[in-house]
Amino acid sequence: MTDGPPPTIPLGPGAEFDLVRRLVARWGPLAEGIGDDAAVVDLPAGERLVVSTDASVDRVHFRRDWLSAREIGYRATASALSDLAAMGARAVGVVVALTLPDAWRDALDDLADGIGDAVRRADGRVLGGDLSRGGELALAVTVLGAASRPVGRASARPGDALYVTGALGGPLRTLRALERGEAPSPADRARFAAPVARVAEGQWLAARGASAMIDVSDGLAADLRHVAAASGVRLCIDGDRVPCVAGASLEDALASGEEYELALTASPALDVLSFASTFGVPLTRIGTVEASRGEAGSVEVRGVESAARVDLPPGHDHFSR
Amino acid sequence: MTDGPPPTIPLGPGAEFDLVRRLVARWGPLAEGIGDDAAVVDLPAGERLVVSTDASVDRVHFRRDWLSAREIGYRATASALSDLAAMGARAVGVVVALTLPDAWRDALDDLADGIGDAVRRADGRVLGGDLSRGGELALAVTVLGAASRPVGRASARPGDALYVTGALGGPLRTLRALERGEAPSPADRARFAAPVARVAEGQWLAARGASAMIDVSDGLAADLRHVAAASGVRLCIDGDRVPCVAGASLEDALASGEEYELALTASPALDVLSFASTFGVPLTRIGTVEASRGEAGSVEVRGVESAARVDLPPGHDHFSR
Repeated sequence: MTDGPPPTIPLGPGAEFDLVRRLVARWGPLAEGIGDDAAVVDLPAGERLVVSTDASVDRVHFRRDWLSAREIGYRATASALSDLAAMGARAVGVVVALTLPDAWRDALDDLADGIGDAVRRADGRVLGGDLSRGGELALAVTVLGAASRPVGRASARPGDALYVTGALGGPLRTLRALERGEAPSPADRARFAAPVARVAEGQWLAARGASAMIDVSDGLAADLRHVAAASGVRLCIDGDRVPCVAGASLEDALASGEEYELALTASPALDVLSFASTFGVPLTRIGTVEASRGEAGSVEVRGVESAARVDLPPGHDHFSR
Repeated sequence: MTDGPPPTIPLGPGAEFDLVRRLVARWGPLAEGIGDDAAVVDLPAGERLVVSTDASVDRVHFRRDWLSAREIGYRATASALSDLAAMGARAVGVVVALTLPDAWRDALDDLADGIGDAVRRADGRVLGGDLSRGGELALAVTVLGAASRPVGRASARPGDALYVTGALGGPLRTLRALERGEAPSPADRARFAAPVARVAEGQWLAARGASAMIDVSDGLAADLRHVAAASGVRLCIDGDRVPCVAGASLEDALASGEEYELALTASPALDVLSFASTFGVPLTRIGTVEASRGEAGSVEVRGVESAARVDLPPGHDHFSR
């Protein structure tokens, strides 16, 4: 029982534990305190624990012919860490439940390296995990973070402005190209294969008073619907202002999921230039928060230059078919 | 941003979120704060966070023809909570990443009820989760607990005594019967299908100075090897004292996994009668902790009345084949 991070603890014999030892060796100093039944974490007084879990499953969230094993490990972990970013939390660490089919056994080191890449980039640690056999590769990544003032979805207020980080549409363009059997552009592919969990950016935004925040995982329109529903407000997107990657239409940008950019509400005076110069990523004001006309919240798109009406896309939904 | 547990937050539209709403309704007051990107948890000052993750995968950890959906949900959750028990921690809550094949869609309510049964029994909450489609049913349950003095595996000391809760062998007998196509005894089946995470028992033992503790998930002998390796000691099991369920041999009791009983080291003066009268479960002194003869720890069985030598079983290992 020490107060500091415990060293990794020796495990008993067995092939399963040989694999765990291999993972821990691969992660090096990123792995912390592995080897007990559970990890022990201390948070400084004044910080609240923030926790989220996210599964990535073969042929649902990725395809092996589209991504390398390292990219699969990275992406599964970054997508989970992105939920900490959306809360304005710093990353404390991750625990990973890895289900490994025999055909993937040789990819274990690469998967571990990808997990490590994402954890290192977010300044977290690997605190523990679970390794089991299975018929289908799956990574269930649980992320632990800390924030003195976690930012939820329910506090958007009329008079706030609506913002988004980065530029949208790349992952959707990549998926379309891959499904057609074509090569996506290198820029589009990078946005899809190596998304960045905006953990530092989320903390910056929380510290400057973001009232509600969400990460763009199902598509901007669909994700903003959650903010609108939770806050009971109308979110009005100025269609001309939505930042799109090269070649992406507004419709693409509204529908593209797995972006892991942050969408948020905050004061209209938020210093977008300071954000951009700090992170090298644009922060764009894309609309306003207005009072809801009914009980439930809603999202609408306004001011589109083209006369065509923009239908709000439904967003990615595993269970819609 | 409130300090108390936030109510469940409205979600946007979609079939996936309809299922989440269904789960939250099913759990009722057990579900807490679901609907943001992440859950927020506050621990009282002086308590440390304890966290572990555990995946249960169809045809690896269970078979649908052996267990009901409710039992599968219960067992996946209880096995994860058992890691909190092994640390001497109280349960704060769980987050569940559920991968649901189409063929299991109708079982969602039963799975949720089983998860709820286990969480309620451990006095925890459902704090969040993730729901996705997949080809194979899997539940990755991450448990969050709290303890002022978490009990690890590395602090067993020569002179301590070795103890185990409950009686062992039932799950192994059940698996053998099921694999032969026979019906297990009701008592054996209950031990297999409805194991109890000994969360209250673990806290009692931690408060009374347990020096090292582990839950029996891979088999007593295999699990004690982790304690021996972590602590660098020799664990000497008195074969005649190992508590066996009716019909189980010592070999069965040493090899039987998924027991979720607690094995621990503590003072020889630990009050086993007080434990038994408090919990209605036996606590049995089964051996001693001795100094290691070499670098690494070891486990041995002594004093078996039968002349037959007892070979230490290897324990359950997903990757040994």
